[in-house]
Amino acid sequence: MALVVMKFGGTSVGSAERIMAVAQRLISRKMEGDNVVAVVSAMGDVTDELVALSRQITDCPQEREMDMLLATGEQVTIALLAMAIHSLGHEAVSFTGPQIGIVTDSGHTKAKIKEIRGDRISEALAEGQIVIVAGFQGTTADGQITTLGRGGSDTTAVAIAAGIGADLCEIFTDVDGVFIADPRIVPDARKLDFISYEEMLEMSASGARVLQLRSVEFARNHSVVIHCRSSFTDQPGTIVKEADNQMEMAIISGVTHDTSEAKVTIRAVPDTPGVAATVFGALAEAGVNVDMIIQNVSEQGTTDISFTVPKDDLPKARSSTERIANALGAPSWNVDESIAKISLVGAGMKTHPGVAAQMFGALADAKVNIDMISTSSIRISCVIAEEQTEVAVRALHDSFGLAKGQVTAETSSAHDRGV
Amino acid sequence: MALVVMKFGGTSVGSAERIMAVAQRLISRKMEGDNVVAVVSAMGDVTDELVALSRQITDCPQEREMDMLLATGEQVTIALLAMAIHSLGHEAVSFTGPQIGIVTDSGHTKAKIKEIRGDRISEALAEGQIVIVAGFQGTTADGQITTLGRGGSDTTAVAIAAGIGADLCEIFTDVDGVFIADPRIVPDARKLDFISYEEMLEMSASGARVLQLRSVEFARNHSVVIHCRSSFTDQPGTIVKEADNQMEMAIISGVTHDTSEAKVTIRAVPDTPGVAATVFGALAEAGVNVDMIIQNVSEQGTTDISFTVPKDDLPKARSSTERIANALGAPSWNVDESIAKISLVGAGMKTHPGVAAQMFGALADAKVNIDMISTSSIRISCVIAEEQTEVAVRALHDSFGLAKGQVTAETSSAHDRGV
Repeated sequence: MALVVMKFGGTSVGSAERIMAVAQRLISRKMEGDNVVAVVSAMGDVTDELVALSRQITDCPQEREMDMLLATGEQVTIALLAMAIHSLGHEAVSFTGPQIGIVTDSGHTKAKIKEIRGDRISEALAEGQIVIVAGFQGTTADGQITTLGRGGSDTTAVAIAAGIGADLCEIFTDVDGVFIADPRIVPDARKLDFISYEEMLEMSASGARVLQLRSVEFARNHSVVIHCRSSFTDQPGTIVKEADNQMEMAIISGVTHDTSEAKVTIRAVPDTPGVAATVFGALAEAGVNVDMIIQNVSEQGTTDISFTVPKDDLPKARSSTERIANALGAPSWNVDESIAKISLVGAGMKTHPGVAAQMFGALADAKVNIDMISTSSIRISCVIAEEQTEVAVRALHDSFGLAKGQVTAETSSAHDRGV
Repeated sequence: MALVVMKFGGTSVGSAERIMAVAQRLISRKMEGDNVVAVVSAMGDVTDELVALSRQITDCPQEREMDMLLATGEQVTIALLAMAIHSLGHEAVSFTGPQIGIVTDSGHTKAKIKEIRGDRISEALAEGQIVIVAGFQGTTADGQITTLGRGGSDTTAVAIAAGIGADLCEIFTDVDGVFIADPRIVPDARKLDFISYEEMLEMSASGARVLQLRSVEFARNHSVVIHCRSSFTDQPGTIVKEADNQMEMAIISGVTHDTSEAKVTIRAVPDTPGVAATVFGALAEAGVNVDMIIQNVSEQGTTDISFTVPKDDLPKARSSTERIANALGAPSWNVDESIAKISLVGAGMKTHPGVAAQMFGALADAKVNIDMISTSSIRISCVIAEEQTEVAVRALHDSFGLAKGQVTAETSSAHDRGV
């Protein structure tokens, strides 16, 4: 008998029919003898519709009230799912985030979980109930309703799994698992059976949308095993867990791409100590999330500074950059929104030199120009022109021999795979 | 400076535009120097839509989960209204029923308020906020979300007014106040400036839809003065309060009608002691709300028993009646759904004999046959054929001289008005 947390996203609960299917799946698991906690998102486009409703009132809604509004979406789903289970003759009880004691900080619309009070879940499980919890939401210690930001239901599920000591956290989604590259670009991309937290973090951070970054961080910090799988089939998906010996043999676990960032360049700033601190201090103060940073070699006492930021942060980034450029006496600055970040992720990279060189070579052969480069110990990222995204992803996938039918990363040595 | 609770129903907050209008009205009142608490319902048809959504899942939703579902409707409105006030440059804060400490019993879908913890409202008012509270909902002492039943937002408003010691509870609605008769049937029906709790209770109980019965009971028990008025104009409406000398002079305050009931007749039951107890004990056990009861004079050892029940309770009433009729050996029973209850309400009736005779005479002159009669000290009700509703309401209105342009009930003696 296992204790399992099962999370279903908006698409999986997008209609009464799909909610009934989720109810059936939960009941089947319960009948197999497991204790079951379900975490669910708002139905389909409900969250977007609520945001649109608020836009009819104001363009700048207060974040506390936005949380009050958005938290209703998941509350509707939990009630309907509990009704569905009852209608099939089984016991279920639903709880909102505040009811279940998901205590967060007061960072409205992007709150962080501080504590999970698991008592109420454990009591309901002991009564034989299937327990249904609203994802994405919590409460501050003084009773304000908060939300965890987009994709926050993944984090709720992992946090509850950690809080109640679950054996497994299953994240049901509309794809079959974690793929080496986006199957829409590389149709023969292979699904991974296993991936380490470290690699999954880099994948999520560099554009893979399947699991929310914060949920993976939470899982790593609390050693929660995640099973990421399809809500439309019974096929196994991808297990995310601590790296083990088998997994360490993979050099490359994934090729990811991200077109959600823009590049800002400030030209000919004085090459004196403290300039970078001025630039990025001001951006941080404005709440701009800077990702990659490049400072070119000095030329006649001046240098160019480039950095990438999420396109969502561009309005703030533009006004900060304008002020910074003026203050530093930089002659010009510009923004390029047509960029893509292409990344190779793999824990084996640490011990295998030559991956970067092969990556740059493959891109050159495909006539893809590299604009910026950044690396971590298990990731190499290149900024390229957005229009070359698909060409680049395919080139890297082919170069590193990641297709289906080849020996799998988990059971082969690096050289078997032609690296 | 007054402390006022202002309640807005679903129609008044039915769109973003109307929510902005409500925000303006609250701000105006605040600017006049009053402390303002708003209580709001779900937008327009939202509650009906949520019920329809649940019906896609099951015909018999568990009541606890129904409350979980329905409570979201008001939560959406409070968030949007707070945003609207912020967007106009003023301070506001929203609270759900559970957050504000509206503690109820555990009677899901029709919970009764046990306690109002007004501290959080008072604190927010002291900060200069306009306080916005979700109507219709509360929490049990152990944290289950409950709802108060249809029209429960009126009760929320009155209960909060009592809990925080408000000077006035304004109920904004889509009509101009309480009318002597339904203006859709009697176009020249007069709006009442004042009405006593006692009369308003009888009006609400006998079909006037403007104020929910329980909210009037609550107001009477806690001496909360209600001002029932239009949300679309600034005109004064109707004040509901303790009877005073002026008000006692009115014999008739209203002619109401109610077509929401059906009549059940069990024929030729044995006229022996305990029969009525058997019949109505069984109906009560089945949760059927019986309104009027008539037992005819005995004839050869048997009698007919008739009673009225809300049409909503008919399924339960039919199955109970079937069982009872069989048990008592009654040869037949039948249901008539085409009935109307017509009532005359007036506190002055107590001390003025002859009102009933005049009522029966007026109905006879209009060729309206009376089927059942029931009276209280300030009300006379007759059951008639549903198709004669309008004829009967107009006949009574004319007979008792209740039209506009006549001297008002509050300032005239009974005889001035031709009774």
